[in-house]
Amino acid sequence: MKSQIVTFLIQCPDQKGLVAKITSFFFEKGFNILSCQQYVNSIENTYFMRIRLNAEGTILSKKELETNFLELATPLKFKWSVHYGDKKQQVAILVSHTSHNLYDLLERYKEGNLNCTVKMIISNHEKLRPVAEMFQVPFYYLPVDKNDKLLQETQLIQLLNKHQIDLIILARYMQILSADFINTYPEKIINIHHSFLPAFQGANPYLRAYERGVKLIGATAHYATEDLDEGPIIEQDVKPVTHESTPTTLKKIGADIEKLVLARAVNNHLNHQIIVSGNRAIVFPETGE
Amino acid sequence: MKSQIVTFLIQCPDQKGLVAKITSFFFEKGFNILSCQQYVNSIENTYFMRIRLNAEGTILSKKELETNFLELATPLKFKWSVHYGDKKQQVAILVSHTSHNLYDLLERYKEGNLNCTVKMIISNHEKLRPVAEMFQVPFYYLPVDKNDKLLQETQLIQLLNKHQIDLIILARYMQILSADFINTYPEKIINIHHSFLPAFQGANPYLRAYERGVKLIGATAHYATEDLDEGPIIEQDVKPVTHESTPTTLKKIGADIEKLVLARAVNNHLNHQIIVSGNRAIVFPETGE
Amino acid sequence: MKSQIVTFLIQCPDQKGLVAKITSFFFEKGFNILSCQQYVNSIENTYFMRIRLNAEGTILSKKELETNFLELATPLKFKWSVHYGDKKQQVAILVSHTSHNLYDLLERYKEGNLNCTVKMIISNHEKLRPVAEMFQVPFYYLPVDKNDKLLQETQLIQLLNKHQIDLIILARYMQILSADFINTYPEKIINIHHSFLPAFQGANPYLRAYERGVKLIGATAHYATEDLDEGPIIEQDVKPVTHESTPTTLKKIGADIEKLVLARAVNNHLNHQIIVSGNRAIVFPETGE
Amino acid sequence: MKSQIVTFLIQCPDQKGLVAKITSFFFEKGFNILSCQQYVNSIENTYFMRIRLNAEGTILSKKELETNFLELATPLKFKWSVHYGDKKQQVAILVSHTSHNLYDLLERYKEGNLNCTVKMIISNHEKLRPVAEMFQVPFYYLPVDKNDKLLQETQLIQLLNKHQIDLIILARYMQILSADFINTYPEKIINIHHSFLPAFQGANPYLRAYERGVKLIGATAHYATEDLDEGPIIEQDVKPVTHESTPTTLKKIGADIEKLVLARAVNNHLNHQIIVSGNRAIVFPETGE
Repeated sequence: MKSQIVTFLIQCPDQKGLVAKITSFFFEKGFNILSCQQYVNSIENTYFMRIRLNAEGTILSKKELETNFLELATPLKFKWSVHYGDKKQQVAILVSHTSHNLYDLLERYKEGNLNCTVKMIISNHEKLRPVAEMFQVPFYYLPVDKNDKLLQETQLIQLLNKHQIDLIILARYMQILSADFINTYPEKIINIHHSFLPAFQGANPYLRAYERGVKLIGATAHYATEDLDEGPIIEQDVKPVTHESTPTTLKKIGADIEKLVLARAVNNHLNHQIIVSGNRAIVFPETGE
Repeated sequence: MKSQIVTFLIQCPDQKGLVAKITSFFFEKGFNILSCQQYVNSIENTYFMRIRLNAEGTILSKKELETNFLELATPLKFKWSVHYGDKKQQVAILVSHTSHNLYDLLERYKEGNLNCTVKMIISNHEKLRPVAEMFQVPFYYLPVDKNDKLLQETQLIQLLNKHQIDLIILARYMQILSADFINTYPEKIINIHHSFLPAFQGANPYLRAYERGVKLIGATAHYATEDLDEGPIIEQDVKPVTHESTPTTLKKIGADIEKLVLARAVNNHLNHQIIVSGNRAIVFPETGE
Repeated sequence: MKSQIVTFLIQCPDQKGLVAKITSFFFEKGFNILSCQQYVNSIENTYFMRIRLNAEGTILSKKELETNFLELATPLKFKWSVHYGDKKQQVAILVSHTSHNLYDLLERYKEGNLNCTVKMIISNHEKLRPVAEMFQVPFYYLPVDKNDKLLQETQLIQLLNKHQIDLIILARYMQILSADFINTYPEKIINIHHSFLPAFQGANPYLRAYERGVKLIGATAHYATEDLDEGPIIEQDVKPVTHESTPTTLKKIGADIEKLVLARAVNNHLNHQIIVSGNRAIVFPETGE
Repeated sequence: MKSQIVTFLIQCPDQKGLVAKITSFFFEKGFNILSCQQYVNSIENTYFMRIRLNAEGTILSKKELETNFLELATPLKFKWSVHYGDKKQQVAILVSHTSHNLYDLLERYKEGNLNCTVKMIISNHEKLRPVAEMFQVPFYYLPVDKNDKLLQETQLIQLLNKHQIDLIILARYMQILSADFINTYPEKIINIHHSFLPAFQGANPYLRAYERGVKLIGATAHYATEDLDEGPIIEQDVKPVTHESTPTTLKKIGADIEKLVLARAVNNHLNHQIIVSGNRAIVFPETGE
């Protein structure tokens, strides 16, 4: 396996001795434990762990590691996944007309601050093609036929599968995706919603924020699920606003929040910091990695 | 009128020359303008002003000032109010079981940081009487008869009117007040709700915040209106939380937000910084007053 | 003058009647006052006003307006400036190796969210030329000769003057400019410093923040003055950090703060929201403009 | 030991297998590990752990536990401490004239939100005796003789030792304590400083913040060390301010920050969340405890 970082994400029923058993397992196999983060949900009696390992000292192959781990995992009823540092994730960004999140993600990518390969930008409009070209990322135009929306989704799935996409980012993509599409990519679609959910679910959140006279506006990044704007929340942030703000200025103030919130959520996902449990996302803080 | 601070709050249809006309009026009557804050809502074409005056240089009586001002106000269709610094507002605080907001307000009052007289604390329970006694503020116990809720409201109104209460603070008062009661005190009842409205309106916001897995929790101070949790928002704030938070720890974190938000809203009201327009509260920032 | 926005920035000794006199002046000349913001510093007894006017209703030319205004301004000892909406400001951005602020500013510019013309990017290194080219902004490479630093400054001044630059943005420009250079452009150079000044003035603020073990890091945008990092502060912001942060992760977290802080400061300047008084910057909030 | 919470704080040179060894130790002795938080400082190659245990399942006495643990700790060069949940910490609060932090701490104490016994309030002035009496906490007046400051410190030490005080809170205590005094209570004195350190060390931070024209003010809670305002930082927070703020209003805004920051730091200490390493405080986040 050479010297690479291996990350395990584990959830299971809580019970005595879990941390000792898991960490001893990896220690005995020759791994160096870089960080080991846990969370116990004592209401639901469940246990969560994110453990990052340096594989330098082990002689196991990936396959052997996984086979061995299964022997630990099965009796303890682990739901688990393993992620290897030598596998770069393939990302697709979906957009419509709004460009600020796209610019922000591409700039971070270009600067080496997104640990992935942005394989493609896909849009139902041609408008943002020039942004893709500026950053030299392939752009695919997949227009939506109002009378047959599923046609475009089929094309979308073909394109995503052909390129073995690991993560789909809805960076202000203004089409509602079907439940079938969503369920094809569980916990692999991150959406940015321009309000502090659950406030202002649905359309036009800034206009409604203006009308309600709120004193702060926000943004929420979450995994997409069948129920629109109801998926597990990964990141949220807000900014104070005043009565002076119009729907137009709210949109501008909000754009900066959306950028930060989406970028943080994407980074959390790419670094394997997230475990989803029911409708809640456990997001372990970044360690000094 | 002697040397005192006089504050006018004005709203009217927007039109040319308003600020010149209003400020010239006060200048000619001998007032010194300490601050003059405006807001134009260009969507609804309305104009708002808060103007603070030092009355030292005028020879007008209060009555003369108001009669004179009416001549300016009527043709320009002002909706206005005037507030004199020598009149201290009389405040009643309503509570049930929860004490943190009560402690916080009484500490600020005791320290001279609430510009009012706290005339009384009223509760439907005896539990917080000792807090009132610590701070030497009269405590009234008005229990609610489940079969005749209006009876207690009638007693409440009698008590409030007898003491000429100017502002009613619902500091975690857990009874729903009738529309009749609310409408008796328009823009004179401030409520603290323990969520960032419009998220989690109604009961148990911290439990629902936990279940929804939000990454920030908040509090909202607003004027009470007939529609529960729907009144004009004065102040809001939030704090980040993580998956580690339980409903119990959310309650604790939230208590600190509630204290700050309610205290700021009450101060804004007592300093006459607020003009309500429809369901929105224009809250002018404090000037160096 | 046609229908354009005219902004006056005024400071003078405080005295009775100022707002009435100034607003009456503009009202009588046919201007519509869009917003009128004031600040009284009662410690130094000075008065500040930012007033925005719509010139649609006036028949005055720019020249006549200024001549007339002088009659008001002189006896009241105004220090003032006037800014016309039809004059777009010419901006130069100076950079060295670090690109995040440059990307951020150029993205906002491209999106139409910076009210100016970015005439050029100037650098003492070639490294960021590709970024300038992506956004199709002219790039000038002006290397510094260690033995004759003033030579480059002379070239810089020639370049800036030739293009009539109104605002110089030091977007992580890592050369110390001479007092002579700075004084050539008073209140026209905005610098971003990567700490919450006055903490960590000078070099390597993130390393020193790590070493001091602070629990928040920040950024400060300020006008450049002779004394390094001592000029009037326009904008500041911070983010919480934990012991997990290394100097490297602090740098990453800080980059997002720097971007927001510099962009806000530049916008405040371009919208003529700032009046400098001594070493303090009065920054009027954006109105619904 | 019965069913109680036991917390170990450990620091040592980093090496392979630490988490496995430590957690296995406790698992084998019959403890249930409630939470286990780690931090690796890869710059200094040091390892830190906070581990919380439920002692229900163990048959060891405290003494046996510590003797056994020593066998693990010595070869691995642990610097460690153990804290038992059945031992309530004894706290002394030192104040001078300013009361907001005192009120805040006492309210939290009274409400059951400070896990300690506040044994006494000590002051060099009589002014805050009534606050102590309101909350029924013993008050000691220890005036300072300008010509012999050490005399009062000697009395102070006698009083603190007599009552076996575990934690000394300097809640705006305006006397400089001698190095001897400070070194008598290493990591047992928490001070609140009214600025975001290292900005505005020393006297009058709000006045200096005004003069410097900063756009945010803050507060810092830290362990007191010989060097004034240089000790390990536990908590910091800030609030945005504007040019409108005077030194007086900064003081008021700052008071709310000081209250929150000191209360959080004290709670972190009382919950054994802090390990000091050099001049940095590792503060583990509260788990759902």
